[in-house]
Amino acid sequence: MTQKLGTDLHHVVSKDEAAELALFLDDLNEIARETILPYFRTGLSIDDKGDGLGGVRHYDPVTKADKLCEEAVRAKIEEKYPEHGIFGEEHGVKPSQNGLTWVIDPIDGTRAFVTGMPLWGVLIGLYDGRKAVMGTMDQPYTGERFFGGPMGAYIERDGQRRDIKTSTVTDVAQASIYTTHPHMFENNAEKTAYTALAKKCQLERFGGDCYAYAMLAHGLIDIVLESSLQPYDIVALIPIVEAAGGVITTWSGGPAHNAGQVIAAATPQLHKQALSYLKDAAN
Amino acid sequence: MTQKLGTDLHHVVSKDEAAELALFLDDLNEIARETILPYFRTGLSIDDKGDGLGGVRHYDPVTKADKLCEEAVRAKIEEKYPEHGIFGEEHGVKPSQNGLTWVIDPIDGTRAFVTGMPLWGVLIGLYDGRKAVMGTMDQPYTGERFFGGPMGAYIERDGQRRDIKTSTVTDVAQASIYTTHPHMFENNAEKTAYTALAKKCQLERFGGDCYAYAMLAHGLIDIVLESSLQPYDIVALIPIVEAAGGVITTWSGGPAHNAGQVIAAATPQLHKQALSYLKDAAN
Repeated sequence: MTQKLGTDLHHVVSKDEAAELALFLDDLNEIARETILPYFRTGLSIDDKGDGLGGVRHYDPVTKADKLCEEAVRAKIEEKYPEHGIFGEEHGVKPSQNGLTWVIDPIDGTRAFVTGMPLWGVLIGLYDGRKAVMGTMDQPYTGERFFGGPMGAYIERDGQRRDIKTSTVTDVAQASIYTTHPHMFENNAEKTAYTALAKKCQLERFGGDCYAYAMLAHGLIDIVLESSLQPYDIVALIPIVEAAGGVITTWSGGPAHNAGQVIAAATPQLHKQALSYLKDAAN
Repeated sequence: MTQKLGTDLHHVVSKDEAAELALFLDDLNEIARETILPYFRTGLSIDDKGDGLGGVRHYDPVTKADKLCEEAVRAKIEEKYPEHGIFGEEHGVKPSQNGLTWVIDPIDGTRAFVTGMPLWGVLIGLYDGRKAVMGTMDQPYTGERFFGGPMGAYIERDGQRRDIKTSTVTDVAQASIYTTHPHMFENNAEKTAYTALAKKCQLERFGGDCYAYAMLAHGLIDIVLESSLQPYDIVALIPIVEAAGGVITTWSGGPAHNAGQVIAAATPQLHKQALSYLKDAAN
């Protein structure tokens, strides 16, 4: 079941506040990198969920790094902004006292993580009580950080920052489409809708995880389609896609921050066209 | 159709020769990195195959980088070892005069490349007229180089070299399996065999390209299953998998260097078990 973000308080982030929060986001990402990297590709990091599989590359692995990272990031937020809310994958929800909530998935793409693929990412997003306003997708191993917010969308690596923008593709026949796994769709309606859309696309690939949204923002992928998402899977990615010029919503065209069925597209025209394939399956 | 490697001459590589050739392989990889990296994620690199799609992320893209890289690598080989053969994806076959042939795929995983995913690799392998004896998978963007040959299997990054070895998984029920795309299988028999095996595995993922074999050698993936491969897709990866302790063959258990249907497994026991699922589809 999809958890919902609270919507009682609304905090409008000013320009000065945004600049301060973006710097803080960098601090959080540095903490996350340091915590997680020692566990990547070590083979020592898989937690056993008690299903008798002995922790050997569990189907839904929760790594020690996942938990430690979220703890470290939460502690830093609580120290600096005790009035802010926190919505994390591993350690649940702390309600916001001022409307701002940090939405955290310490390792999005745990299956990529445990199989050594550098497509997982640290997702940290900021929700203002109405919408996702700022977010980062950080890939500690490749050293890439994707940012989206009021100051634009960019990739930062090796101290160099470059603005990114989505592609100009407007027609599904020219589009590339990514989804994490063909089995991620919940029911036949979802599967049928996905297949109809993917068939029309020029290129279909699997396995992108959060990295696919970053590549969409970078102009290299045109559509990302997923289902069964939680807010912490997507809130950080919304500002990156939007600030890069893309459109990201639910399959019925609503705001994406409450997750579930999510579609991201490079242009409004492409988004509209893609939605028409999804309407029979949209919740 | 699968092209075949020549098998007329056999050149046994001595220990001293192997050391020299491994250094030369590093030189070739440096040339490849320099040639390819400027084209990655630039959006300027897609060649139009003349199908009217205007080169917009072509379904089977051949990038300019692909061609330039193979030309540069071939030139270096012809300068240093004019008697060696060359078998490349882009510029065909130069017969060997002494039994040794360099087998090159300048960008394996072109679909990963054009969508920005760092899972493509430069594959350079050495075939001695009977078998693949040495090879590298280089990922220029992440700065990783995987080597396999008489001196072992290792990953090199940022000047640091670490030995790698396959996992100890012996049972498909504990195994993770990767294949590049569910549609890569040629016929129903292949598809049925793949599905039967994948269903028994603990974790199934798509989209690994050559990177999946490197992660298998690294002990993070247990089975990689593919079909319709060409020799240049696999020759470089065979010594990496084998030197790391894995087994790599065709689906019928024959040598993998002539490509077609290929399976790699972490252990001999796992390989034997996996083959039993494939026998009705094996050529």
